[in-house]
Amino acid sequence: MRELKGACIFGQSGGPTSVINASAYGVIDTALKNPNITAVYGAEHGIKGVLNDRLFDMGQENPEELALLKYTPSSALGSCRYKMADPDVDDTDYKRILEIFKKYGVRYFFYNGGNDSMDTCNKISKYMQKVGYECRVMGVPKTIDNDLYGTDHCPGFASAAKYIATSCMEVYHDARVYDTGMVCIIEIMGRHAGWLAGAAALATAYGAGPDLVYLPEVDFDMEQFLSDVERIYKEKGNCMVAVSEGIHYADGTFVSEAKTSATDGFGHAQLGGLASLLANVVKERTGAKVRGIELSLLQRCGAHLASETDIEESFMAGKAAVENAVNGITDKMVGFERGEEDGQYVCRTKLLDLSEVANTEKKVPLDWINETHNGVKQPFIDYVLPLIQGEPPLPKQDSLPRFAQLKKVLVK
Amino acid sequence: MRELKGACIFGQSGGPTSVINASAYGVIDTALKNPNITAVYGAEHGIKGVLNDRLFDMGQENPEELALLKYTPSSALGSCRYKMADPDVDDTDYKRILEIFKKYGVRYFFYNGGNDSMDTCNKISKYMQKVGYECRVMGVPKTIDNDLYGTDHCPGFASAAKYIATSCMEVYHDARVYDTGMVCIIEIMGRHAGWLAGAAALATAYGAGPDLVYLPEVDFDMEQFLSDVERIYKEKGNCMVAVSEGIHYADGTFVSEAKTSATDGFGHAQLGGLASLLANVVKERTGAKVRGIELSLLQRCGAHLASETDIEESFMAGKAAVENAVNGITDKMVGFERGEEDGQYVCRTKLLDLSEVANTEKKVPLDWINETHNGVKQPFIDYVLPLIQGEPPLPKQDSLPRFAQLKKVLVK
Repeated sequence: MRELKGACIFGQSGGPTSVINASAYGVIDTALKNPNITAVYGAEHGIKGVLNDRLFDMGQENPEELALLKYTPSSALGSCRYKMADPDVDDTDYKRILEIFKKYGVRYFFYNGGNDSMDTCNKISKYMQKVGYECRVMGVPKTIDNDLYGTDHCPGFASAAKYIATSCMEVYHDARVYDTGMVCIIEIMGRHAGWLAGAAALATAYGAGPDLVYLPEVDFDMEQFLSDVERIYKEKGNCMVAVSEGIHYADGTFVSEAKTSATDGFGHAQLGGLASLLANVVKERTGAKVRGIELSLLQRCGAHLASETDIEESFMAGKAAVENAVNGITDKMVGFERGEEDGQYVCRTKLLDLSEVANTEKKVPLDWINETHNGVKQPFIDYVLPLIQGEPPLPKQDSLPRFAQLKKVLVK
Repeated sequence: MRELKGACIFGQSGGPTSVINASAYGVIDTALKNPNITAVYGAEHGIKGVLNDRLFDMGQENPEELALLKYTPSSALGSCRYKMADPDVDDTDYKRILEIFKKYGVRYFFYNGGNDSMDTCNKISKYMQKVGYECRVMGVPKTIDNDLYGTDHCPGFASAAKYIATSCMEVYHDARVYDTGMVCIIEIMGRHAGWLAGAAALATAYGAGPDLVYLPEVDFDMEQFLSDVERIYKEKGNCMVAVSEGIHYADGTFVSEAKTSATDGFGHAQLGGLASLLANVVKERTGAKVRGIELSLLQRCGAHLASETDIEESFMAGKAAVENAVNGITDKMVGFERGEEDGQYVCRTKLLDLSEVANTEKKVPLDWINETHNGVKQPFIDYVLPLIQGEPPLPKQDSLPRFAQLKKVLVK
C-alpha cells in the first residue's frame, strides 16, 4: 500500500434518513483521528458544495456535538439531488471538482447516498482516474429504500422499518376501537422496491398489523385489491392495508399517478396522496368508514425510533470507508455481509465496485411475496427482524430530542 | 361515609389516546383490590357494552397483562361515540342501563372520556338519582384535545403533545435538507381548541420547529397566512407551518370544509386533508416546493413517545375515581390541579361536578396567542413543558412494542 497524505471531502446526497448522520460521524470521526488525512471537509449540500466551493471545516466542530450526529436525523451538512452529466458529453462539473480538489489538496473523497449518489461517486472516481489525479474515492451506502445492489441491506432502512412496524402496531389498535369498523390504508415510501412496505408485516407478525400488504415488485390489480379488502372487512369488521407508494398497474403506470405529475430532479414521478386515493375508492365500493394515512417524511426522520443496530452499522460503514481508503482502496462502495456467530446475527463490511452498484436496484425477491400478491412470507420477516434490534441511548433535553448543533465553519 | 358494597362497571368512550388504558388500569387495579367492590366489569365499547349486556370480567385477566395496559395505546375495551338522548324525552336507554345495573348488582360506574362522554356520565348519574337507585358515578377525564373544563390539563394531551413536538423537530431537519427550499405544513388534531397545534411550538422553543402556528381560537385569514409564509420563505429559504385541523374563517366555516362534508356521530364536521389543501394554495401562490403532512391517528396512538408524567397522572385519575367513590363521593369528575413543591411541578387530583364539566370546552387563553395570530407565547410553553416529561419503561419484544393482550371473558 502506498501512503497517501491529503485532505478529505465528505458529502451527503439524496433523501435523508434517521441515521445518515451516524455514517457522517463514522467518516468524520475516523478521518479526524487519522494522521494521513490532513483536513476533513464537509461539503454543503453534497456535490453542490464542492462545485460551489462551500466546504465546512469539520475540525472546528466541538467533538461532543459531532458525537450527537449518531442520534440526529436528516443530513446535517445538507443534501442534494444533482444529476452529473456524462463526462464525455460535458465535463464542466468534473473540471470544477478537480480544481477544488487541487485547491484544497484533496486526496480522499467520501460520498454517502443511494443509487443516484453512487452514480455520481462512480463518475467522479472514473474521471479522476482518467485525468491521472490521485484521489481515493469511496461510496458510503444510505437509503431507506434498501435497494442498493450487492449489499445485504442498507444503512437507514432498518430504522425506517422499525418506525413503520411500530406505528402500524399502534394504529392497528386505534383503528379498531369502535364497533362500527373501519378500513385503514397506510401509505409507505419505496418507489420501485417494496422493502419498507413489507416491513409493515413485522407488525402483523407481532399480532397487530396490516391484513394486506402491497409491494411494487408485482403488478397491482384494483379489482383484486377491492375484493381483498371487502372480504376481510366482512370477515373481521375491520381491515388494515399497507401499500407502497410505488404500486403500479400491469402497464407500469403508478396507481397514484392520476393525483400528481410533478417530478423530482432525476425525472422520477413525485408520488404521494395514494392513501387517500385508495381510501376514496374503497369508500365508494364498500361504504365503509375509511382513513388514509401517509407516513410521509415521518418514516425517514423518526430518529426517536431508530434501530441501534442500524445506527452502529451506519457508523461502521462510514468508518470502514475511511479505513479502507487510507489503506489504499479506491473506487469502491462499502457494503454489508450478514453472518451468524453463536446463532446470533452479525454484520461485516465488504467492498463493492462502484460501477457495479451505480444505478442498479435490488428489489424484494419474488419468492418472498405471497402467491396472492397481498403479503410477504416468513423469509422476509426473518430478514428484517435482526436489523431493527436495539434501543439507542437517545440524548434528550427536557424530554425532547437533543440533536447535534454544528458550527459549520466555512473553509476560507 | 356510608359503606356501599357492589360491582363496578368501567367504560371507555370517545377518541382513544396513548394513555387512556393507563386510566383503565388505575380504575381496574384499584377496584380489584378494594373489598367493597365485589366484581369489576369492563364495558365493551363504552356505554354500548352496558346497553348490549356485553361486559368483560376483569377479574379473569392475568395481572401481568393488565399491568401492560399502562403502556398500551387506544381503548383496550373498545370505545364508542354514542349520544344519549335527553332522559325527559326518551328514557329507553336509561331504563336499560338501570336494568343491567340491577342484574349485576352494580353500585359503581366509572366512565372515561372527554366532553361528550362526561355528558353521558352526567345524564346517567342524574337519572340514577332521580329513580333512587344508589350508584356512585365518577367521570375519569381523557382527551388529547385538552379541552375539558375545570381541570388544569387532561390525561392524554401531554403524550400527544410530546409526539407532535418530537415529530416536528425531526421533520424540521428533514424539510430543509436541500438547497432548493420547501414549505412544509403539518396538520394537527384539535377541532375547537388549539392545545395540540400549540404544542408544535415546543419544537420551536428547542430550536427546530414551525415558524408559524395557527390555532382555532382565532379567525384564520388566508391572505395573511399566505403573506406570512411568503415572507418567511423569502427570508429563510424554508418555511414550516403547524395548523390545527379546526382553523376557520371569521364566518366560522372550517378552512378544510370544502374538502369533505362527512360528519361524525355527534354532528361535528369530519376534518382532514387540510394540510394538502393549504400546501396546494401555497404552491399556487409562491411556486415553492410544498409538502403537507397530516399527523392523523399517529399523534393520538404514539405510545412509544408517551410522557411518563402523563401515564402516571392518567393512572392516578383512574385510581382517584375509585377511591373517592368508595369513600362516598358520586356525581363528580376527577380533575387535576397543578402545584409546585421545591420549585418542581406537582399534580394533585381534585373533584368537579359532572354537570359543570359536561359539554363545556376549555380553549387556549387568547393572551397566550401572539398578536399576529401565528404563534403562541412563553406562558403556553411553560404550561405544556412539565407535562411531557419522562420516558416510560416501554415493554418490548424483539424491539417492537409488547402491548397488553386481554382475554376479555364475557360475563355470563
